[in-house]
Amino acid sequence: MTRSSRKPIIGVMGGARVSDEVNEMAWHLGRLIAAQGWILLNGGRNAGVMLHSARGAKEAGGQTIGVLPDDSKESANDYIDIPIVTNLADARNLINVLSSDVVVACPGSAGTISEVALALKNDKKVILLRFKLSDFDYYKRNGRLFEADSPEECIDIIKRLLDEVGPK
Amino acid sequence: MTRSSRKPIIGVMGGARVSDEVNEMAWHLGRLIAAQGWILLNGGRNAGVMLHSARGAKEAGGQTIGVLPDDSKESANDYIDIPIVTNLADARNLINVLSSDVVVACPGSAGTISEVALALKNDKKVILLRFKLSDFDYYKRNGRLFEADSPEECIDIIKRLLDEVGPK
Amino acid sequence: MTRSSRKPIIGVMGGARVSDEVNEMAWHLGRLIAAQGWILLNGGRNAGVMLHSARGAKEAGGQTIGVLPDDSKESANDYIDIPIVTNLADARNLINVLSSDVVVACPGSAGTISEVALALKNDKKVILLRFKLSDFDYYKRNGRLFEADSPEECIDIIKRLLDEVGPK
Amino acid sequence: MTRSSRKPIIGVMGGARVSDEVNEMAWHLGRLIAAQGWILLNGGRNAGVMLHSARGAKEAGGQTIGVLPDDSKESANDYIDIPIVTNLADARNLINVLSSDVVVACPGSAGTISEVALALKNDKKVILLRFKLSDFDYYKRNGRLFEADSPEECIDIIKRLLDEVGPK
Repeated sequence: MTRSSRKPIIGVMGGARVSDEVNEMAWHLGRLIAAQGWILLNGGRNAGVMLHSARGAKEAGGQTIGVLPDDSKESANDYIDIPIVTNLADARNLINVLSSDVVVACPGSAGTISEVALALKNDKKVILLRFKLSDFDYYKRNGRLFEADSPEECIDIIKRLLDEVGPK
Repeated sequence: MTRSSRKPIIGVMGGARVSDEVNEMAWHLGRLIAAQGWILLNGGRNAGVMLHSARGAKEAGGQTIGVLPDDSKESANDYIDIPIVTNLADARNLINVLSSDVVVACPGSAGTISEVALALKNDKKVILLRFKLSDFDYYKRNGRLFEADSPEECIDIIKRLLDEVGPK
Repeated sequence: MTRSSRKPIIGVMGGARVSDEVNEMAWHLGRLIAAQGWILLNGGRNAGVMLHSARGAKEAGGQTIGVLPDDSKESANDYIDIPIVTNLADARNLINVLSSDVVVACPGSAGTISEVALALKNDKKVILLRFKLSDFDYYKRNGRLFEADSPEECIDIIKRLLDEVGPK
Repeated sequence: MTRSSRKPIIGVMGGARVSDEVNEMAWHLGRLIAAQGWILLNGGRNAGVMLHSARGAKEAGGQTIGVLPDDSKESANDYIDIPIVTNLADARNLINVLSSDVVVACPGSAGTISEVALALKNDKKVILLRFKLSDFDYYKRNGRLFEADSPEECIDIIKRLLDEVGPK
């Protein structure tokens, strides 16, 4: 094994309480990520974008990592293969974005916005998937923050960004 | 001593690289916070809003806490009385907001926005001081996020919020 | 997929600067862990027990997780499949032990002892593999800290402990 | 104000459930630390060494910092002036020792031992106050770990160590 054989890790952020439409979109995104052979990483809990994106990835035969905020893997949803137990509460948001080669943010509220902010602060590339934010326009102009209207468009952007970064 | 004698801790967030005008405003805010007998808490480093708000507080006879991201108090500016050394990088942003009774956000970029988001996620009251953000309007409508045009107006809002919270 | 299909995660702690004999033992332990179908988790860096236990696991066809203390996966050794990037310095030691179903401690110094202590504090079962410690005898008497003289004996104890814990 | 005017911060670690004798010793140590004009830092909770060392320091007119593991200052004892709220569980142990100029360890169990280990790993000087540990003898020989039989002897060692470190 060499370093270049490592699979890309794609972080999928988003709210715990979102519309059915967003959950469905997260599920679809999870399927597409797995189909590419990428690993999906999210916050691991049993709700919203975390639950549905992991379910999508597992149903398509992929592998999933859940970085949990509390002290036990009991809080992980059933579609997480590898629960990372932190007991660091929201400080685990930093781990979510640092461990991802590319970060996708689905709609969410303050928690998700904190992950977008921490990712950009740490020079990660971020894709907003049907998530309308206007406070980060500086990063859009600088080529670090992107917008996608569909999971398919999101995958295209990730492919391009992974090519830029090169082998892991 | 009883619990009610604890001094309020006011968190002052904001960018490390900001305009002279913002630095001056942070300095003025620091002075006013100290004049109220409150403790000022910030990120402790030797730049921007962290430096100037601490300087203002010290010049007015107040006390200052700096929650540092790196592994030594060497990085604290000269106006920090109590350096808290975390070596947690941006995860220290969570400590900044959780340790503050009220959080003030001066202009900044992704790091500052992450603190606004983490504060709101954790039910803290936040005041934006001449810092224009539009992605948190939900919290403005809910009475958790406020806007101030001057340090004086900011102090008035803090007083009101501290009254609501009651003795520490 | 159901929760019970999750693979056990075995944490392997130990020093970055250890004797050739300890490195060899870590390599052998890694092989045996992989042969059981378990996932190996360690601190991920390119030295000592972290390097050699991961190498052993990969050579035997297993999967490896490295929980890194710094801000980039650049510091991971070549045998880590899944680098978890924390930028939390030694605070990542807590994540190492909380994420492991059973913790094995090979010889090391203060860093490794901190992991033994944090694991026991958090009710994890710990096996000392040829690592002589005397400050935790209370936990030996309580059935939470075990001693093994060889990787093979270590594997036997892990099997027994995993049976007690039940399916993941 | 200049950097050299910063007061030394002395960390006092120790168990939450200890004998009356240890609580009494922690109280006495707190009094002596305050009498020197030093700031006392501990884990802030309402039990054992944390409670009694803070009470001693406050009764002698000193100032106290409590670095709390949970999400609110509600868990701080009444003798903590400055509660630092982390919500990082045991990861806050790292902050305790990094923020202290010298660390004193009173008797405790795994949590306290983790702090001794993390302090030594991070090149802090540590004094064991009637706390018998044998797994860190390497650090005793290297002049980084000391033993004291009484709070008075502990204070003498701290004075000497602070002189070595020089002004803060």
